[in-house]
Amino acid sequence: MQTPSDKALVPFISVKNMMALVHHIGISAFLKGLAAEIEADFKRWPKFDKTPRVAAHSDVGVIELMPTSDGEMYGFKYVNGHPKNANEGLQTVTGFGLLSDVKSGYPILLSEMTLLTALRTAATSALAAKYLAPNNARTMAMIGNGAQSEFQCLAFHAICGVQEFRLFDIDPSATAKARANLSRFGLNTVACSSAEEAIQGAQIITTCTADKQHATVLTDNMVGSGVHINGVGGDCPGKTEIAPGILHRSSIFVEYPPQTRIEGEIQQLAPDHPVTELWRVIMGEAKGRCSREEITLFDSVGFAIEDFSALRFVKKQIQDSQFAEYLDLLADPDEPKDLFGMLLRAAPNSIAA
Amino acid sequence: MQTPSDKALVPFISVKNMMALVHHIGISAFLKGLAAEIEADFKRWPKFDKTPRVAAHSDVGVIELMPTSDGEMYGFKYVNGHPKNANEGLQTVTGFGLLSDVKSGYPILLSEMTLLTALRTAATSALAAKYLAPNNARTMAMIGNGAQSEFQCLAFHAICGVQEFRLFDIDPSATAKARANLSRFGLNTVACSSAEEAIQGAQIITTCTADKQHATVLTDNMVGSGVHINGVGGDCPGKTEIAPGILHRSSIFVEYPPQTRIEGEIQQLAPDHPVTELWRVIMGEAKGRCSREEITLFDSVGFAIEDFSALRFVKKQIQDSQFAEYLDLLADPDEPKDLFGMLLRAAPNSIAA
Repeated sequence: MQTPSDKALVPFISVKNMMALVHHIGISAFLKGLAAEIEADFKRWPKFDKTPRVAAHSDVGVIELMPTSDGEMYGFKYVNGHPKNANEGLQTVTGFGLLSDVKSGYPILLSEMTLLTALRTAATSALAAKYLAPNNARTMAMIGNGAQSEFQCLAFHAICGVQEFRLFDIDPSATAKARANLSRFGLNTVACSSAEEAIQGAQIITTCTADKQHATVLTDNMVGSGVHINGVGGDCPGKTEIAPGILHRSSIFVEYPPQTRIEGEIQQLAPDHPVTELWRVIMGEAKGRCSREEITLFDSVGFAIEDFSALRFVKKQIQDSQFAEYLDLLADPDEPKDLFGMLLRAAPNSIAA
Repeated sequence: MQTPSDKALVPFISVKNMMALVHHIGISAFLKGLAAEIEADFKRWPKFDKTPRVAAHSDVGVIELMPTSDGEMYGFKYVNGHPKNANEGLQTVTGFGLLSDVKSGYPILLSEMTLLTALRTAATSALAAKYLAPNNARTMAMIGNGAQSEFQCLAFHAICGVQEFRLFDIDPSATAKARANLSRFGLNTVACSSAEEAIQGAQIITTCTADKQHATVLTDNMVGSGVHINGVGGDCPGKTEIAPGILHRSSIFVEYPPQTRIEGEIQQLAPDHPVTELWRVIMGEAKGRCSREEITLFDSVGFAIEDFSALRFVKKQIQDSQFAEYLDLLADPDEPKDLFGMLLRAAPNSIAA
């Protein structure tokens, strides 16, 4: 049996190694680095191939492929969304991703993306808030205290300087879990008994709940002027969190309109309701927040470019490091036309047929 | 550091293990098993989600994702096509694939698919010929003796009983390589110095060349009545092998028309030129070969369902066997809502931040 050549081997980041890499860099530093990478890619947004994700829906969930390319590297993520999974001891969202070289088509990185998606989602939310939230926002309501919530809080602390987090979940044990986890970072947290209580005094309201149904986590009368809403949980058809009345009073910012109109909060609005693409704000081509009184809303659904940025960020971090394993993923015969010969030479005692 | 739970681990078939599995089963038996699996799935074709592949084109090649689902399992393949790779010591086509459980969205198999694609392409060609080629076809012309050629010959021997293979390639060393490899299986091979010579006496003509350009491997005057043409190499926009005159004299059979009209030989014809879907022939809903004089043409481009069948075939073969490694691909915290806590507990000495 031949040993695989270098070309056959693809660096692989396991969950264990992703966790080790995050701790090696530091969670807050990782989130900041990720946000900077995403920001840089949003500044060259027109360079990317963009397509709404390719989704396979079933009655219990969705499996999606999210590809993009900047012409030099190609990336895609496999991700599922199964709200009922949490009741069965499984993750609602899991994923993995791949980067490859456009010139040869050869993969150059395979990585877990359950953790990495949680990190990039939080980094993107905080990046959007950096451009949209009121100046000196120091208090955030965190409604929904599930798997994504601590990542959100930590990102808003690290990237936007938010100091106090007012937590609410219909499941008090989720709030207790989030508080315990966040206490390790010296963050100020307050457990609230309702969404109304959570948003008191908050300049930023983050919603991140998991039901696949039209829920109304924020009703129209709850939200006053001058806040930034970071809507994370409205992220697939039939799944929204925010009352249409609030949407009508808000300036709405999105990642990629063709995808957000299907998946985001704005699926509740007319298909031509005006929205602003976040990348244009970051580029300086469009205005973000225009006044103190304005309600800004980032209708986050997650776009392939953010995953691309995250994979490339990880790829840079693992250069010559201990965080990758190498998978024998690609057949690489000595003579490219002799794939069959490679197979024959791998036979026990080289006896074929 | 916690050890990953069973749910976090995904069976992975490396190239090395795929080769070992193929030899464990036997190459011919593997091809036959694969063809049977593909045939069974073609018989339930309407059950599958079908979409043309999602392609990212560059000036040197293409990277594609090919998803499908039968409602119980979901599968996709990542595959590239870079004709110039062969000149740079790389494979023209490499790939890997994934199967997952539609109910949970969790991956259940990750596999190399460079070898597996070569095997399933050959098995599909032979399956089509079983329904379309003249009775008692015993001689096949094999035009193009690259990486796919021996797989084709062996599949036609194992599945259709073809005994003699007349080989031609513009590169005589490719022909010599194919002959040497095939001699191990006791197949009768003849090296020919032109395509015209290769097709003499052949009831089946297989074309499988690699240039990304409109080539004419078969000209109109070369092909007489009563043959079956297995056109494998015309498989992406701008890449065809067969003269339009032959297409106009042939009954054309395809996998999935919306994809074949873009990628196959029939990209040279009007968009409404009549074609027959192969699955309908296999189901008995449409006629295959109607007369001895007819020219039948299988315009093979490769469809996602064949990859799905191949992945599921492999998944069945590796049950409780030594051919899988297990990858720590999915984050699976003890408490699904506590992804962040899992990350914290993975910290060196459990110190976070």
